[in-house]
Amino acid sequence: MNQASWLDEIRWSPEGLVPAIAQDMKTGKILMLAWMNREALALTAQEGRAVYWSRSRNELWRKGEQSGHIQQVAEMRLDCDSDVILLSVEQVGGIACHTGRESCFYKKLSHDQQWQLVDPIKKIQK
Amino acid sequence: MNQASWLDEIRWSPEGLVPAIAQDMKTGKILMLAWMNREALALTAQEGRAVYWSRSRNELWRKGEQSGHIQQVAEMRLDCDSDVILLSVEQVGGIACHTGRESCFYKKLSHDQQWQLVDPIKKIQK
Repeated sequence: MNQASWLDEIRWSPEGLVPAIAQDMKTGKILMLAWMNREALALTAQEGRAVYWSRSRNELWRKGEQSGHIQQVAEMRLDCDSDVILLSVEQVGGIACHTGRESCFYKKLSHDQQWQLVDPIKKIQK
Repeated sequence: MNQASWLDEIRWSPEGLVPAIAQDMKTGKILMLAWMNREALALTAQEGRAVYWSRSRNELWRKGEQSGHIQQVAEMRLDCDSDVILLSVEQVGGIACHTGRESCFYKKLSHDQQWQLVDPIKKIQK
């Protein structure tokens, strides 16, 4: 009961999810945004590493399970509306994106309004 | 047609929305996450300041319209899945949160699993 009360304070979406932003604790870079259900968030706190809910696969997603690029969670924050989570993480391998880039936010809107790929691929993913 | 094509690349939610993270361009701090519909995103690009969609009020929300705490947008990014926007902003007044704090993420999960208020209120909001 007591143990779970911090989870009860989250304002879950109708689907039972909350968006979670992962920020690199050293560089301050935003690495990615993914979703968590109650179990994923509880596991993240328990294991000290980011566990998300894959909306496409409909299953728990232990970030880095296959790639090794796990995210060690140093700090968890909640926003004023209690409906967004912010993780401060150590990104193992320096790669958060499945494309092999440091961050998932590698498309930048140019002055002529095109999404340009601006960040390098650090490692070709298998 | 051409002008709108960058908007067509967004993978909008079933409700026609996309989450947008606002990051302070100077400090790297995550200020807030809010939602945008197509019109809000188009206006953000056009006006160079953050315009969101208020899901509670069901209307366009020109950030800072009442408080003066507008967000000048220096850069817009899109993630690998094309379903999250990242804004790099200059936060006028240094206050993004309606509680008068710099950032909306002022609740931190403590070691004994409580959400603790850790950031100061910079200004009492009217």
